[in-house]
Amino acid sequence: MFSILQMPELDQVAINDKLWNHYTNMVADVIIPYQWNILNDRIPDAPPSYCLENFRITAGETAGEHKGVVFIDTDIYKWLESVAYCIHNGTGSRFEAIADEVIDLIGRAQQNDGYLNTYYTIAEPDARWSNLVEGHELYSAGHLIEAGVAYYKATGKDKLLNISRRFADLICSVFGSGENQIKGYPGHQEIELALVKLYRLTGDRKYLECAKFFIEERGKQPNYFEAEISKRNGQFLFPELKDYDLKYSQAHVPVREQRTAEGHAVRAMYMFCAMADLAVEYKDEEMLNVCRELWLNTTRKRMYITGGIGSSGHFERFTTDYHLPNASAYCETCASIGLALFGRRMAAIEHDASYYDIVERALYNTLLAGISIEGDRYFYVNPLEVVPEACMDATSLKHVKPVRQRWFNVACCPTNIARTLASLGQYIYAYDENTVYINLFISSSFSFEVGGEKAEISMEVDLIDSGNVSITVKTPTDRRLRLAVRIPEYDRTPEFSIDGKKIHTESDRNYAIVEVEQAGNQTVLMKLKLKPRWIASHPNVSENSGKVALMKGPFVYCLEEMDNGRNLSSVFVDTKETVEEYRDGSLPLGLPYLVYKGGRLTDVEWNGNILYDDARFNIEPTVLKAVPYGIWGNRKPGEMIVWQKALLR
Amino acid sequence: MFSILQMPELDQVAINDKLWNHYTNMVADVIIPYQWNILNDRIPDAPPSYCLENFRITAGETAGEHKGVVFIDTDIYKWLESVAYCIHNGTGSRFEAIADEVIDLIGRAQQNDGYLNTYYTIAEPDARWSNLVEGHELYSAGHLIEAGVAYYKATGKDKLLNISRRFADLICSVFGSGENQIKGYPGHQEIELALVKLYRLTGDRKYLECAKFFIEERGKQPNYFEAEISKRNGQFLFPELKDYDLKYSQAHVPVREQRTAEGHAVRAMYMFCAMADLAVEYKDEEMLNVCRELWLNTTRKRMYITGGIGSSGHFERFTTDYHLPNASAYCETCASIGLALFGRRMAAIEHDASYYDIVERALYNTLLAGISIEGDRYFYVNPLEVVPEACMDATSLKHVKPVRQRWFNVACCPTNIARTLASLGQYIYAYDENTVYINLFISSSFSFEVGGEKAEISMEVDLIDSGNVSITVKTPTDRRLRLAVRIPEYDRTPEFSIDGKKIHTESDRNYAIVEVEQAGNQTVLMKLKLKPRWIASHPNVSENSGKVALMKGPFVYCLEEMDNGRNLSSVFVDTKETVEEYRDGSLPLGLPYLVYKGGRLTDVEWNGNILYDDARFNIEPTVLKAVPYGIWGNRKPGEMIVWQKALLR
Repeated sequence: MFSILQMPELDQVAINDKLWNHYTNMVADVIIPYQWNILNDRIPDAPPSYCLENFRITAGETAGEHKGVVFIDTDIYKWLESVAYCIHNGTGSRFEAIADEVIDLIGRAQQNDGYLNTYYTIAEPDARWSNLVEGHELYSAGHLIEAGVAYYKATGKDKLLNISRRFADLICSVFGSGENQIKGYPGHQEIELALVKLYRLTGDRKYLECAKFFIEERGKQPNYFEAEISKRNGQFLFPELKDYDLKYSQAHVPVREQRTAEGHAVRAMYMFCAMADLAVEYKDEEMLNVCRELWLNTTRKRMYITGGIGSSGHFERFTTDYHLPNASAYCETCASIGLALFGRRMAAIEHDASYYDIVERALYNTLLAGISIEGDRYFYVNPLEVVPEACMDATSLKHVKPVRQRWFNVACCPTNIARTLASLGQYIYAYDENTVYINLFISSSFSFEVGGEKAEISMEVDLIDSGNVSITVKTPTDRRLRLAVRIPEYDRTPEFSIDGKKIHTESDRNYAIVEVEQAGNQTVLMKLKLKPRWIASHPNVSENSGKVALMKGPFVYCLEEMDNGRNLSSVFVDTKETVEEYRDGSLPLGLPYLVYKGGRLTDVEWNGNILYDDARFNIEPTVLKAVPYGIWGNRKPGEMIVWQKALLR
Repeated sequence: MFSILQMPELDQVAINDKLWNHYTNMVADVIIPYQWNILNDRIPDAPPSYCLENFRITAGETAGEHKGVVFIDTDIYKWLESVAYCIHNGTGSRFEAIADEVIDLIGRAQQNDGYLNTYYTIAEPDARWSNLVEGHELYSAGHLIEAGVAYYKATGKDKLLNISRRFADLICSVFGSGENQIKGYPGHQEIELALVKLYRLTGDRKYLECAKFFIEERGKQPNYFEAEISKRNGQFLFPELKDYDLKYSQAHVPVREQRTAEGHAVRAMYMFCAMADLAVEYKDEEMLNVCRELWLNTTRKRMYITGGIGSSGHFERFTTDYHLPNASAYCETCASIGLALFGRRMAAIEHDASYYDIVERALYNTLLAGISIEGDRYFYVNPLEVVPEACMDATSLKHVKPVRQRWFNVACCPTNIARTLASLGQYIYAYDENTVYINLFISSSFSFEVGGEKAEISMEVDLIDSGNVSITVKTPTDRRLRLAVRIPEYDRTPEFSIDGKKIHTESDRNYAIVEVEQAGNQTVLMKLKLKPRWIASHPNVSENSGKVALMKGPFVYCLEEMDNGRNLSSVFVDTKETVEEYRDGSLPLGLPYLVYKGGRLTDVEWNGNILYDDARFNIEPTVLKAVPYGIWGNRKPGEMIVWQKALLR
């Protein structure tokens, strides 16, 4: 217990994967430059960001009002974090000069006492910390700290780190249980996990203790947020918050008493991450148990098949167990990233690969859906069923955009996608002193040391066709290496061989343990059976009763209008028929269609324009072509559906 | 064309129906006294109304601030309209003294120039007419006028009529195309149809012309609402209106160019009513054509099977063709009342009974669902599928209440239900100089004159079991009478007989024409075949693909949890099996269940708590018991579903 697995540093992993390299290379090639233009308001048909302009105003270098949302600073912090990861993973050194310049600007915008927030400094200088529910100062500070830590690790330069430490020092003095300290905590969690990172880098325990304070104080009685809101006479910065409830920001009960994933999904995930971090640092078994329960509630009661979370468009939040409406889902891209971050932590604590079934699901489906093949359009909301005409402004579906957008007024997702892709290597491998763990099947190599000597694992994966995962281990000749290879949920009985010789493996918490006895240069082959699978939901998921979704490996498939016509809800599939793979080069990244037989309700016998009439169902045979959900919406706009009706016989 | 059918006065119709008399009697016995207590803030566990208190403050008789929504005045106006109808139909004379008192109070709250609005007079006396988008002054005036007209007709007393005329006179002078007049129109339509009523009663054409001005000006360029909003710098009284768009209040294009039902459903219906009224008064064929198209778009593309309208919870509005989500539907009770009012007008203009198929559907299903069997709890929102746990505050389903409520902060529906029930007689019969039209099959009698002599029709109906509609005609012996009896959509070929002798009838625009040759005291019997029918939706209604709803006559049936267990989405029905009627006295009003065989997906083979797994469907046979939608939720709280999956074979 609490012998947590280590993540590799980003320069230890080189990704070399047909699918993923398209995205990871794009971070430096497309996304970072594009987002830099956005943050400088240089993309004419995108909503203006104002992000860097606000820093210039705060630094006194130009005049103007603060524009954009109160947490707009985080866009440049997450951009810097992406740049740091790209520098670290070897793809982004060309951004270092520009990053240094923007770090200088951030430094000039920092106040003498360490405070750093463009909104409050420009617009409400006397109102610091007065609106923790909505003000996002601590949230923004968290992203600043994450950027500072990442940039230091990537470059050894400590300027941004020191900026963030100065702010963190201020926060640690302002907040706490002491007499003159504020007993509040962030409306949007994030700083807690960032403070743990800062502690782990610097060894300064006050950061850890401040994180613990924020987490432990949350939701206690008398409730800080209730008191704060009543002090403001119920006035809200965001008019829609008139509906505010404490569950929205997980402040309804102390975190140790929470057993269900409630409220705003991103806030919940970032909080759960910090709780897992604190459980490790304090060897806190009770906290870890809470994390386990929250993980189970999230992933077994409140998660879409795509790894999306957040069933309610209003307030981007969780609702209740098994309530997973497809067309009106929120499934914010950031929330799935948060879920992956939480799962990675739990896997590292519990040495259990099953967490990666969820992490992988979130990455292959919702994360990829969040960004266009070209890298410059994004989904914030990721529903599982779209009829574009119904996604109307000023209606209950106003949050759903049927096509990816250039940018958003609240633009957390695009930079979050970038930093996740740039740090993907840290999801693939983990290690402890005895073992290297393989968590994701992505072609890549991992360089590390065994007993002071250099070693390398290189992995060649075909997760689309053959299911072959070929792992070549190079160690000094006299060394053995223990490999723990994740047994994924889609094949619980993969075959293993070493250098062509079949071997038997024991499994431990969903890892197959392979002892590479004759070290040197050996190849372990795992053969995964990747047949297409028709998946159903737990019978309590009322939205999906009698429906199936098609998966192959970690890929969830969906139907798009351009391949299958309109009115995709009228499609029925025959799960007894064979699913064939089909490639004609028309799908991005050379991905295959899955093709199968089904039926379609038609209006052949329908009585004209009458809306309701005696039931007559006419089902015509049809052939359906499904595409991976992660790449939907990249060709032509139109309908999309994941859950299809099954012909039940 | 434009020989509009007349409605009876309410003292001409006496309702004597097993089902409907429960509700119509309740208006005077329960609803009016209950709502009087509400409007006086005397029901402790209901949200306070403040309605009458605001009038007392406005009249200077007590001190205080305005409380409640800006259109709260309309609650007492609609209450008075209900009282007037009850006095007129003979059930409410005991309320006359109290109504006179409240009319006096209203008179004392009227300003010297005729202006009457408690919110603006108390809270923003200098801001009259400055916020037509939200202020509801004209909407409130409309309900005042309707009450004034109704009270005069019922009692002959003209005090309320004169109050409303003074206000109407002011409005007619303030608004119009003249040089010093405001070229605006109401944010919430209602006054237009009220002004036509006032014109019809008084003969003063300026009221008609003002109604026409409001309707014709609406949506023209430059747009009045856009100008008004920009004058207020985009500040809204209602924070949620930051999303405001012109379609919301049907002001996006001139009404003559509108072809689809858009925006807030109640506003749309009240506007369509006024357009139909104006088409008649001005013999305006073009306007009538627009009404026809709007009727068809509403009822053939955007209406739930229950006669509910408004697919979006956000903004209580229409969305797009065939988009009819069941669980998140708005289906405001008032909107269905508005649909019935519109349909009644169109039927009267076109002499076409098919409009009453929709009117009847709205009354038997959504109107009845809007009120509890006891009369003191109400639904504002009427979804077609409810899982109570999912109807959470601060989520996308926050508008859905799974149980009827005592009252609402916005309480338009309860008083609207009351005035509709109290005036039900005007939906049953209509007439012109040659013919009496029977539109609804509700046991009742209708007294009228033929050539100066008294005549009476009495109708005995059994619309639940036998389908017999027995119409006894009493006329002076030398008179013939032409009866036009609606042929309803659920039996296009009813059998007719006179005094036991089968007759052949011609039909004209969905009325069967029966010439009662030997007048005196004859009985026409229409035998309707009322077999239970499985109904499907147009194949484009994606929400209902492969699903059926059960109807018998005008009753839509639904399944409730207390009869059928939880997870009603997992139910499949076998439409080939017989539907049986079953009565055990447990349903309100002695109504029968409909009982049929089906299947239910179970978790027998499901893999524990796993959320997604290989598809295995286990359908167990089950027997299902359906109840009329209009009475759902009157026994125990729980799930409810209208559209059930059909086993397609």
